[in-house]
Amino acid sequence: MITHESTLRVRYAETDQMGVVYHGNFLAYFEAARGEMSRDFGMGYGELEAEGIFMPVTEVQIKYLRPVRYDELITLRCMIDELPTRRLVVRTDVYGPDGRKCVEGVVTLAFVDRKTGKTVDAPVHFIQLLEANWKQEK
Amino acid sequence: MITHESTLRVRYAETDQMGVVYHGNFLAYFEAARGEMSRDFGMGYGELEAEGIFMPVTEVQIKYLRPVRYDELITLRCMIDELPTRRLVVRTDVYGPDGRKCVEGVVTLAFVDRKTGKTVDAPVHFIQLLEANWKQEK
Amino acid sequence: MITHESTLRVRYAETDQMGVVYHGNFLAYFEAARGEMSRDFGMGYGELEAEGIFMPVTEVQIKYLRPVRYDELITLRCMIDELPTRRLVVRTDVYGPDGRKCVEGVVTLAFVDRKTGKTVDAPVHFIQLLEANWKQEK
Amino acid sequence: MITHESTLRVRYAETDQMGVVYHGNFLAYFEAARGEMSRDFGMGYGELEAEGIFMPVTEVQIKYLRPVRYDELITLRCMIDELPTRRLVVRTDVYGPDGRKCVEGVVTLAFVDRKTGKTVDAPVHFIQLLEANWKQEK
Repeated sequence: MITHESTLRVRYAETDQMGVVYHGNFLAYFEAARGEMSRDFGMGYGELEAEGIFMPVTEVQIKYLRPVRYDELITLRCMIDELPTRRLVVRTDVYGPDGRKCVEGVVTLAFVDRKTGKTVDAPVHFIQLLEANWKQEK
Repeated sequence: MITHESTLRVRYAETDQMGVVYHGNFLAYFEAARGEMSRDFGMGYGELEAEGIFMPVTEVQIKYLRPVRYDELITLRCMIDELPTRRLVVRTDVYGPDGRKCVEGVVTLAFVDRKTGKTVDAPVHFIQLLEANWKQEK
Repeated sequence: MITHESTLRVRYAETDQMGVVYHGNFLAYFEAARGEMSRDFGMGYGELEAEGIFMPVTEVQIKYLRPVRYDELITLRCMIDELPTRRLVVRTDVYGPDGRKCVEGVVTLAFVDRKTGKTVDAPVHFIQLLEANWKQEK
Repeated sequence: MITHESTLRVRYAETDQMGVVYHGNFLAYFEAARGEMSRDFGMGYGELEAEGIFMPVTEVQIKYLRPVRYDELITLRCMIDELPTRRLVVRTDVYGPDGRKCVEGVVTLAFVDRKTGKTVDAPVHFIQLLEANWKQEK
C-alpha cells in the first residue's frame, strides 16, 4: 500500500458562518494532498495532463467526524490500497492539530484520454511510480 | 417522500482547467438546492440557525456521471425519503440542460444545538413542515 | 451608457466565520452579473470563448460599504460607460434586500486572442451588441 | 516599513477553464499571506478575533500582470508602509516561480469591535507588534 502525509493551513476564506471549514472545501484539500503525493513521488499531476491524460473524479465519499477551524495546521494522510487499472481509489484522512481524526474521504478517479474523452487504463509509468513507492502492509 | 426542483446557472468561477465544473463545487450546489427547498416550504435554514439549531453535514456521497459546463442552466432535484429523527438524508440529483443526469449526491445532516454542540432531535415544527409537503410515492 | 440588473441568492458556502459573505466572493458575483447581462444582450460569454476570444480580468477595484449575509437576495447592477477598444470597464454595484448599496466594484477586462495570447481589439459584433443596448444618459 | 514573504502552491480547485488561477481567488491568497505574516510576528489573526476585534476588508485594488497556473509555487510579498490608526493597508505582490511579478494587490482593513459593530482604533499591542517588526526603508 501507499501512504503519504502532507499538511496545510486552513484559510479564512475556507470557513463558513458556522465558524468551521465549509464541508465542501475538503475536496480541494484532498486534491491538494494528492498533488503533494504525486510531486513527492516524482510526477506532478500537471505532467499527466500535459501527456494528454485527465484524471476526473468519478466518486466521492466523505465522513465528517469533527470540525476543522480557521488557522489550524491540519495533516492530510493519503492512502492507496490497490494499484489502479481503470480507476484509482485514494483515501484521505484529515487530522487536526491535536492528532484527532476529523474527516475521512474516499475519492475515486478515472484515467481519461483528453482527445477522445474515453476512459483508458492507467499509464504504465504511473503504475510503476506507485509500485516504486509501495510498502508491504504490516 | 419529498421532491423539490430548482435551477441554477453555472458560474465561470466554478469551472476548473478541465473545462468543467470543479467536482468540489457540487456540495455548494446541493446546499443551494436544499436552501431553495426550505424556503419554498416556508422556513429558511437561516431561521433554524436563528433558533439555535445548526445542521452540519456529517456524511456525503457523490457520483459524477457526466460533466457540467460553464453557463449551463442545471436542474437540482432534492429528494427526502424518510422523516428525520436525529439525521436528515437529502438526495440531490443534478440534470444538465438536455435533461440527462450528471451528478448524484446524498448528503446527511445532523441537528446540533448551537450552545451545547450536542446532536439533538429534529425540531417538531421542522418535521411538521416536511409532513405538510409529503407526497405518497406512486 | 449601459445598465443591467440581475439578482442572486447568497449561498452558505459563500459566507465566512465573520457571518457575512467572504469579501473575495464578490468577484464571482460580479462575473455572474456580467454573464447575465451578456446573455440578456444575446451573446453569452461562452460564445465569445468559442470564437477564440478570452476576456481575462486585468484590474479590479472594490469598496465594501455594508456586509451581505447568507440567504439574502441581492441585486447586482452592471454599468458600462464607454464602448471598449482594447479594454472593457464594467462597474457592478451590489444592493441588499433593503435596497441599500453594499459593495461597489469596477472590473477591467481585456480581449485576448486565445491562440496568440495577445491583446486584441474588441470584436466588431461585440461592440455592435453594446451599441444596440446603449441608452443616452439622462 | 514591514515586508514579509511566504509561499503557497496553487491548487487545481483554484484554476478556471481559462487554464489559470481564477482572478477572484487572489483575495484568499492575499489573506493567507497576511495570516502567515501575523503568525510570524507572534499574533495570529484568530487571537485578534478571540479578543473581540474583527478586521473586515473595506477596500481592494488588484492588478493582474501575468497569469498564475496550477501547481506553481508562488511567492507572496506583503508590505505595510504605515502604522494603522483606524485602517490598515497591506500591499501584497504575487511572484511566479520564475521570479516575475504576476499580481499586485492592495487591501485595506478596518478594526471593528465585534459587539458594537463599530470601527475602532487598532489595538495598542497590535501596533507594538508592527513596530517591533518595522524596518527603516533604505
